Amino acid sequence: MKNNAITSRDIDFGKWYTDVVRAAKLADYSSVKGCIVIEPNGYALWERMQEILDKKFKELGHVNCQMPLLIPESLLKKEGELVSGFAPEVAWVTIGGQKELEERLCIRPTSETMFCDYYKDHVKSHRDLPMLYNQWCNVLRWEKETRPFLRSREFLWQEGHTIHATREEAEKETKQMMDVYHWFHNEILAIPSICGKKTEKEKFAGAEYTLTNEALMYNGVALQSGTSHYFGQKFAEAYGVTFTNKENKEEFVYQTSWGTTTRMIGGLIMVHSDNFGLVLPPRIAPKQVIIIPIGQKEEVISLSLKYQEELRKEGITVDVDRSEKSPGFKFAEAEVNGIPLRIEIGERDLEKGNVTFVRRDTREKIQEKVDLDITSYVKNMLDTIQKDMYERALKRRKELTFEAHNLQEMESILNTQPGLIHAMWCGKRECEEKIKEIKGCKSRCILEKGEKIDSKCVCCGAEAKEHVIWALQY
Amino acid sequence: MKNNAITSRDIDFGKWYTDVVRAAKLADYSSVKGCIVIEPNGYALWERMQEILDKKFKELGHVNCQMPLLIPESLLKKEGELVSGFAPEVAWVTIGGQKELEERLCIRPTSETMFCDYYKDHVKSHRDLPMLYNQWCNVLRWEKETRPFLRSREFLWQEGHTIHATREEAEKETKQMMDVYHWFHNEILAIPSICGKKTEKEKFAGAEYTLTNEALMYNGVALQSGTSHYFGQKFAEAYGVTFTNKENKEEFVYQTSWGTTTRMIGGLIMVHSDNFGLVLPPRIAPKQVIIIPIGQKEEVISLSLKYQEELRKEGITVDVDRSEKSPGFKFAEAEVNGIPLRIEIGERDLEKGNVTFVRRDTREKIQEKVDLDITSYVKNMLDTIQKDMYERALKRRKELTFEAHNLQEMESILNTQPGLIHAMWCGKRECEEKIKEIKGCKSRCILEKGEKIDSKCVCCGAEAKEHVIWALQY
Repeated sequence: MKNNAITSRDIDFGKWYTDVVRAAKLADYSSVKGCIVIEPNGYALWERMQEILDKKFKELGHVNCQMPLLIPESLLKKEGELVSGFAPEVAWVTIGGQKELEERLCIRPTSETMFCDYYKDHVKSHRDLPMLYNQWCNVLRWEKETRPFLRSREFLWQEGHTIHATREEAEKETKQMMDVYHWFHNEILAIPSICGKKTEKEKFAGAEYTLTNEALMYNGVALQSGTSHYFGQKFAEAYGVTFTNKENKEEFVYQTSWGTTTRMIGGLIMVHSDNFGLVLPPRIAPKQVIIIPIGQKEEVISLSLKYQEELRKEGITVDVDRSEKSPGFKFAEAEVNGIPLRIEIGERDLEKGNVTFVRRDTREKIQEKVDLDITSYVKNMLDTIQKDMYERALKRRKELTFEAHNLQEMESILNTQPGLIHAMWCGKRECEEKIKEIKGCKSRCILEKGEKIDSKCVCCGAEAKEHVIWALQY
Repeated sequence: MKNNAITSRDIDFGKWYTDVVRAAKLADYSSVKGCIVIEPNGYALWERMQEILDKKFKELGHVNCQMPLLIPESLLKKEGELVSGFAPEVAWVTIGGQKELEERLCIRPTSETMFCDYYKDHVKSHRDLPMLYNQWCNVLRWEKETRPFLRSREFLWQEGHTIHATREEAEKETKQMMDVYHWFHNEILAIPSICGKKTEKEKFAGAEYTLTNEALMYNGVALQSGTSHYFGQKFAEAYGVTFTNKENKEEFVYQTSWGTTTRMIGGLIMVHSDNFGLVLPPRIAPKQVIIIPIGQKEEVISLSLKYQEELRKEGITVDVDRSEKSPGFKFAEAEVNGIPLRIEIGERDLEKGNVTFVRRDTREKIQEKVDLDITSYVKNMLDTIQKDMYERALKRRKELTFEAHNLQEMESILNTQPGLIHAMWCGKRECEEKIKEIKGCKSRCILEKGEKIDSKCVCCGAEAKEHVIWALQY
């Protein structure tokens, strides 16, 4: 039985998306235009993401810190490209403590500025390097069109900012953190993703280059989900971040930054969820298993609690739902909230020695004997669900991956069923802009080891330089 | 050998405090007036605080969420007392995306407003109650005088906001969360604290009453460290948060809020630290043990690593410092950073079968046999340090606790050696204000079960109603 509150995914994908966000109680609109309330179910997902990524960052030697929220205008303006990239979309504090401020302060849209300002006073020698800092915080960008998780004026993210003694080391860091995001999407979120380099037009304001992690949503629209920037010495020059190198000469540091945001929650929904609500891969689900006893019989309750205890011992997150709601209501709730595995324990089933397992991803019901080895069964089942979800998303992506050799082909794909379009490009901005005229299709990334699929640019027919993936995007 | 960068605590307490903050790399000033950079060592402390408190909150049924940073002026103004309490100290965003805003937005000084605005649309029946929400976030108050951690314009905190179907339940929550703060200070931070009720003058703007957790710093000045407010139905009335009660009648919800901040880091420093730097209680220390091998001999290194492995197995946070710095430098660094226990493993000691343990709190060196049961020894030692630190802080507080029966006595105490002054009070605001004229001495809290120590008000001599603790404060 379909959840009536949720529009069909194939009828209106946009409406379906916001319906799932609301039905699974992930987020709600607020009285502040363009800003959302992240509700407990949504925040629990963000906490899981933080937990897993933070552990990985720390294993790689990063430490967390916290920079101020506000940036003085004069400081922001020191790096020209950054300011021209972000100035149009910042919010300005002009009054503090009832007084007009002498200098206005912007709410951070990103914190390169603040990190540089800090680093310049705290680095002296190559022995102080690298400095591998990260922060988890809120940022604000004055977007015009907003959509829960995907684009909102305020969002939560992590921003890593590192400085190094050599170009090689900094570039290695840029690549390493992109690999972390790729691992996180593929292994944890079960979202197959593609990493590559952004074109000059699409790179981060002020970066030498930007690496990006791109995922394809169910409807064939791409989502940029994690970027890693190599800055070279550009910011260091603007902010005066120098160190004494091994040759005892003063030199500017080499810098990176990299970030992922609550937008990943949007990606999770648009890759995996269905008309019945949220579907979560077991590795990211805040609660992996829910046990629903049907009736109050002692055998039913005691078996429920026994399963819970055994599963918890193995580190599986599980609850027995003993609330006063009806079993039918509990099933529907577990379903809309995307809990990967549901165990139904009923009196009549139990008499026959049976219990029922329901996979959220396939909605398949499986009857098993009550005396099975519950922990190894559930562990295997969760692994299978994780793997199957990834495979299904990969299959969908393959179905929605195309090749184009000229603008007509590109246009025809975008008009029929959008997806990831592989096409060769001459490297000229004019061609990129011309392609964008087709429904706003943008370059997603340049494949660094992309094989040549044509010798000519998909747009102008001149000699092609790069194998690029193009798509509509959020 | 005293750390030269640190002013003596007894010569200039204020300077000593900021010296410790800087020497232990906890925080630094930033280019934004009144805002600090929380450096990795300081942030690691905050992460430990979050970890322990968050676990406790969740055990008690609370869930985390995230409200917007910005509050529209019209929404803030709905509750009169709140706005008059906070309006003088907020920062206003007036420009967004290069346009003057139609309505200015303040950066949250606290989020009662946003929670009420959310709750009003999400509560219908008593079956939806209680709603037990908390958020970890940044807030901003435009303070004039600032000091790292103790008072800064932006700070990090958690704010719990709960709504209930009955007064009893909400008051129980208010008390319960105060008990959590008390437990956290005494058991985890090793800071003896006193809980009581704020006077009308000192309570939170808009609260029916405020419970507070008060700690005494080494110099005899008090620090408010955690408050829990009972709002009754006041905010619910202002924001229209109603529910249908069990009698099927519409009623306003009963509400609480409670919070603790990064200020606790300041408290930790001012209670426990010394002229050699930071001193951390083992239960809050991000790193509990540091092993410093002296020299590179194989036996030295392998014993260091063996200890590390065994201690980690038991959940003790420990590292072997194998960096290229000299042992003397490493000792000093471990000391200034407040690592509770240091293990020095030297070649010559080892030949005699000895290793050396150094307690940070007492700076005592203890030689032990190399084949001791390392995990039980270290566990016991950490427990002893935790207990001793609490006992020392308690002893200090007792030494700085006084009784006053009239204004002359009060004045004399405050002029000699400030501390916690127990005195009776008639309940009149005039007397509270008159007492404040003595060096800014304020009521800290009313002891709810305080025995009568006099029958007359310490100020006016009229009949006394309350046993109050008074002190200078941060």
